[in-house]
Amino acid sequence: MKSVVISLGGSIISGDRLDIGFMKRFSNMMEQSRAFGKVGIVVGGGRLARNYISDLRETGTNDIILDEIGINATRMNALAMTTFFKNCNLKIPTTINDAAELSSNYRFTIMGGTEAGHTTDTVAALLAERLGAKVLINATSVDGVYTDDPRTDKNAKKIGNMTYDEAIALSLKKSIGAGPNVFMDLTSLHIAKRSGIRIFVIDGRKLEDYASIVEHDTCTGTVIL
Amino acid sequence: MKSVVISLGGSIISGDRLDIGFMKRFSNMMEQSRAFGKVGIVVGGGRLARNYISDLRETGTNDIILDEIGINATRMNALAMTTFFKNCNLKIPTTINDAAELSSNYRFTIMGGTEAGHTTDTVAALLAERLGAKVLINATSVDGVYTDDPRTDKNAKKIGNMTYDEAIALSLKKSIGAGPNVFMDLTSLHIAKRSGIRIFVIDGRKLEDYASIVEHDTCTGTVIL
Amino acid sequence: MKSVVISLGGSIISGDRLDIGFMKRFSNMMEQSRAFGKVGIVVGGGRLARNYISDLRETGTNDIILDEIGINATRMNALAMTTFFKNCNLKIPTTINDAAELSSNYRFTIMGGTEAGHTTDTVAALLAERLGAKVLINATSVDGVYTDDPRTDKNAKKIGNMTYDEAIALSLKKSIGAGPNVFMDLTSLHIAKRSGIRIFVIDGRKLEDYASIVEHDTCTGTVIL
Amino acid sequence: MKSVVISLGGSIISGDRLDIGFMKRFSNMMEQSRAFGKVGIVVGGGRLARNYISDLRETGTNDIILDEIGINATRMNALAMTTFFKNCNLKIPTTINDAAELSSNYRFTIMGGTEAGHTTDTVAALLAERLGAKVLINATSVDGVYTDDPRTDKNAKKIGNMTYDEAIALSLKKSIGAGPNVFMDLTSLHIAKRSGIRIFVIDGRKLEDYASIVEHDTCTGTVIL
Amino acid sequence: MKSVVISLGGSIISGDRLDIGFMKRFSNMMEQSRAFGKVGIVVGGGRLARNYISDLRETGTNDIILDEIGINATRMNALAMTTFFKNCNLKIPTTINDAAELSSNYRFTIMGGTEAGHTTDTVAALLAERLGAKVLINATSVDGVYTDDPRTDKNAKKIGNMTYDEAIALSLKKSIGAGPNVFMDLTSLHIAKRSGIRIFVIDGRKLEDYASIVEHDTCTGTVIL
Amino acid sequence: MKSVVISLGGSIISGDRLDIGFMKRFSNMMEQSRAFGKVGIVVGGGRLARNYISDLRETGTNDIILDEIGINATRMNALAMTTFFKNCNLKIPTTINDAAELSSNYRFTIMGGTEAGHTTDTVAALLAERLGAKVLINATSVDGVYTDDPRTDKNAKKIGNMTYDEAIALSLKKSIGAGPNVFMDLTSLHIAKRSGIRIFVIDGRKLEDYASIVEHDTCTGTVIL
Repeated sequence: MKSVVISLGGSIISGDRLDIGFMKRFSNMMEQSRAFGKVGIVVGGGRLARNYISDLRETGTNDIILDEIGINATRMNALAMTTFFKNCNLKIPTTINDAAELSSNYRFTIMGGTEAGHTTDTVAALLAERLGAKVLINATSVDGVYTDDPRTDKNAKKIGNMTYDEAIALSLKKSIGAGPNVFMDLTSLHIAKRSGIRIFVIDGRKLEDYASIVEHDTCTGTVIL
Repeated sequence: MKSVVISLGGSIISGDRLDIGFMKRFSNMMEQSRAFGKVGIVVGGGRLARNYISDLRETGTNDIILDEIGINATRMNALAMTTFFKNCNLKIPTTINDAAELSSNYRFTIMGGTEAGHTTDTVAALLAERLGAKVLINATSVDGVYTDDPRTDKNAKKIGNMTYDEAIALSLKKSIGAGPNVFMDLTSLHIAKRSGIRIFVIDGRKLEDYASIVEHDTCTGTVIL
Repeated sequence: MKSVVISLGGSIISGDRLDIGFMKRFSNMMEQSRAFGKVGIVVGGGRLARNYISDLRETGTNDIILDEIGINATRMNALAMTTFFKNCNLKIPTTINDAAELSSNYRFTIMGGTEAGHTTDTVAALLAERLGAKVLINATSVDGVYTDDPRTDKNAKKIGNMTYDEAIALSLKKSIGAGPNVFMDLTSLHIAKRSGIRIFVIDGRKLEDYASIVEHDTCTGTVIL
Repeated sequence: MKSVVISLGGSIISGDRLDIGFMKRFSNMMEQSRAFGKVGIVVGGGRLARNYISDLRETGTNDIILDEIGINATRMNALAMTTFFKNCNLKIPTTINDAAELSSNYRFTIMGGTEAGHTTDTVAALLAERLGAKVLINATSVDGVYTDDPRTDKNAKKIGNMTYDEAIALSLKKSIGAGPNVFMDLTSLHIAKRSGIRIFVIDGRKLEDYASIVEHDTCTGTVIL
Repeated sequence: MKSVVISLGGSIISGDRLDIGFMKRFSNMMEQSRAFGKVGIVVGGGRLARNYISDLRETGTNDIILDEIGINATRMNALAMTTFFKNCNLKIPTTINDAAELSSNYRFTIMGGTEAGHTTDTVAALLAERLGAKVLINATSVDGVYTDDPRTDKNAKKIGNMTYDEAIALSLKKSIGAGPNVFMDLTSLHIAKRSGIRIFVIDGRKLEDYASIVEHDTCTGTVIL
Repeated sequence: MKSVVISLGGSIISGDRLDIGFMKRFSNMMEQSRAFGKVGIVVGGGRLARNYISDLRETGTNDIILDEIGINATRMNALAMTTFFKNCNLKIPTTINDAAELSSNYRFTIMGGTEAGHTTDTVAALLAERLGAKVLINATSVDGVYTDDPRTDKNAKKIGNMTYDEAIALSLKKSIGAGPNVFMDLTSLHIAKRSGIRIFVIDGRKLEDYASIVEHDTCTGTVIL
């Protein structure tokens, strides 16, 4: 049994409405599997946050306020997620330290964002570091890291393995060019690098990948190490 | 200049998306009017909260968790609202006491919900009590209190004035029968009654009503006193 | 073993002085009984709070400040109560969420009030909701709900069973007329109703009633369901 | 105008009931005098706390819990006191730092105890230190420091002036012998000594002494310097 | 008068011991200049933090704990700095939001780090964003950004102006190769970029540069824009 | 197995640099011994704090700010210490209550100071009181309490046993004369006295003394009881 932290992209659990079916399947799979030790789950904001933020950004709203609004949305999603788990925290922690303390009491510790300037991917990397977990699963709506955006570029290829430095270079290239379409932000990659946390970028809806990562160290997505 | 607290229904500022036009008009009106002294604005959750809550309620989610999810939504709305004011708090207070302390520094104090079990109407009544404000404007999407639901009953009549006890009896009658369609919850009415806070229930989009209430003690909606 | 939340009226544990004898008998009974699972105990303010509040009310003090003063008194009583239990929290939680997290570590979670505008009965109802407890024992100084005030009306009759709506109607009727002599406030009744929490109103000094409620679903007082 | 901190003994404001008459006279005097700059007022627990604590001490309750119960009582008294001031904080700070920040916004900052192990005299000394106030008025129910207990020893003489070290020696002698009848605890005297804060021990009900201390550096009680 | 945030490198104020002479000169200059509006000062950890962290890193200590230890050191430095200012906060805020609220009360708001994973440069960028400041002064022990490390490479040249993207590319290149010798971390550069905050990297001991930046938009170091 | 609280002097773990070798030996000894039940460890500030404080004191800095700076240093040391224990808290508690709650989850609870005006010896005494521990080990750099300062007075003799009142008298005598060279401050001695907590003053580097105290009630230093 290994400790693992999952960065669960908000787009996996909420489109126009919450995807309650997925939340049930995901929590059932997690609770019934014996592969996992202590699990941290950091839930993103998803479309809910994005709509708010894009509407306000047009009016010139301060980015740090947009970050904070987004953090509230992640906490709504995290609260919703707790209702599908039996052995998890009841209160959503707002710092890594509080999350770490809660993980002494529960098998699953569920949270959202912590502070403006940190993505939920970065929160997940910090939580992994704090818990001593060496596996970080980045569960997104794309099935891995691609050389280019697979939705617009037919020649984009999925990358099987990459080093932290390659991932950082790719994340940087995308963030300078394209804006928010980064597979993972630089801070989270740096934290994973400094602590040797292996990152698995997967399509979060493929439930069989989660246990496969913990048990066999493989996934159908991309491994960064 | 009178102190006033406004309970701004979430449905006034957000339908499928934020109604940024209204938020600008509302904040302009408030900032430019000289009628108002210290102003507390308690923003509701609106459709954003309602969708989340109705989806989760169907799965049997604990009501107190639904309340908490709703409170997060009110804070998102409150944060969004702060971006349209110049002289207001930067941090959304999470207790009435913190809101009261902030009101020493700002003309406008903007917040959302505080704790499960309290509606934003109740938060507004408590804030009015704490600030010593004797006017509470309940800005909703209906233009006053009706004898029955005006959307379904053609004979429903708008009530011009009513006593606290009449309002309590009507709120109770509706809450037993119909569910969430209460114009104002019982706790907020009790608080207003115990402290003699006059309530004005108005269509929140009629901007001319706000100053009229403070200056002339009248509105196009319903007065509870 | 069932989870249960007890709203322990302050008048049960303190008259002019603390009733330490009762506190010992109560805690012994609770700790030795095997009927109870997780137990939440919400302690009221009692005479201590009432004297302060009535003296200050005459000088025109803001009701919300009186509420806060009362909350401090409930926390004094809750702290005192913790000293008679072995397996209970050391720190008095100030929110329902903190109480819920503490209940992971202890068999007994003891607290007072949380926020102005909430009675300790409401706190107890919210705590029951948060813990998933379906039994709320309202331990008062009267042995049930009466049709009228039994101290002044000889024809007042104790009610054996009543529905939530009947209880709400009765609470409302009393709160409009008489002031503080309500057996249970409307908000707590609404919360119990929305979550199907059965309420047992008993004379809190009759120690045999507590286990009887949990084991046999009966008491010598009034059941609201 | 000088900054000053007042340690207002609980026995001055509450006997069996709150002495509301005194609270009004005291606050009127303070608000109308032009002698005072920023004022910190630390309110003690008085008889309310003492009764609770003595009843519980007999049952063997942990002293630190008794301290905490006492701190709650001081906050009730502090809250009550705020209602008689116009330009003071609304929320009772629970740390010296929070009190210091509040004093930027208000002329009067009112608080009770902070943490177990600290008397309100010590809190007052720390607050004086934090605010840079060089005057600490210890307003008690005795009119100064005596060589012995004036209630039991007819030969006890009031001391006009004494050094910090003499005060420390006297406080120590009394605390070893007699228990709680110390005029001021050692920690508060040490803090006053290290920062050169002049202490005036007065009968708190003699309202003319307060301004006299600030304006003329004299009082009818005892000066420690 | 412009708002400005200064990221004051710990190495500027503390070598083996605190450089109290510099702290006095710096605070005098800031308080006497009329060039500055609201000023945020984020103080780094300096050698104090570095020694602790390097000793512990060798024993394999978790990086996030090292971050936290470093944050404590920044708060010690920030506290020390407050003692040289007259119109500044007394309590060191631990979040950007609390800092922003404090800045309503004071001309100077002084703080250290906030949360593991954020450098004090990033805290400074976030604070600038929150306060709406468009100028961020990065006061370091090197007099600007160089093409290479000037201490080891004689051909290293100081860069006068660079774009955000050039700065990001240079920071990335250095962070992959060299470790901690980065002039500014990526997250802070990204935040400055997204909000159009101009960065001035200067030798923090050259006191004439601070006002020159605010008044004339120039400095002897490097401008990133 | 007995509960015990250790006040671990900062000078034991840090001179110019952290003494990592000692920290490892100390934690190994503690974790492997079966003598101890629940253990609280309160870590002091050591030379790190002292240098900062002495430099700032010369500039006239407020003592309470120096206390706060010292408290930050104790927390750095406490964080460092946690990294050498397996079954201990992850977050450093900042109040006695929080520490007490953490001790429900862990065998070892590690913390630093709590609030200005309290030494870490006093924090240790309060923690012992809160946890019901009857043994307080004061681990210092001197091997017991001496009649005079053994570094300067050759005739100074180590005291084997002393009463609380003797210890208080000696502490007082030293604190009036010499300044900071007190073996234990008065407040901590008073707390130990009021709760009957036996104090063992030892040279903290003599690892065999710790278990000997718990198992055989003896040590090579001084016992206060």
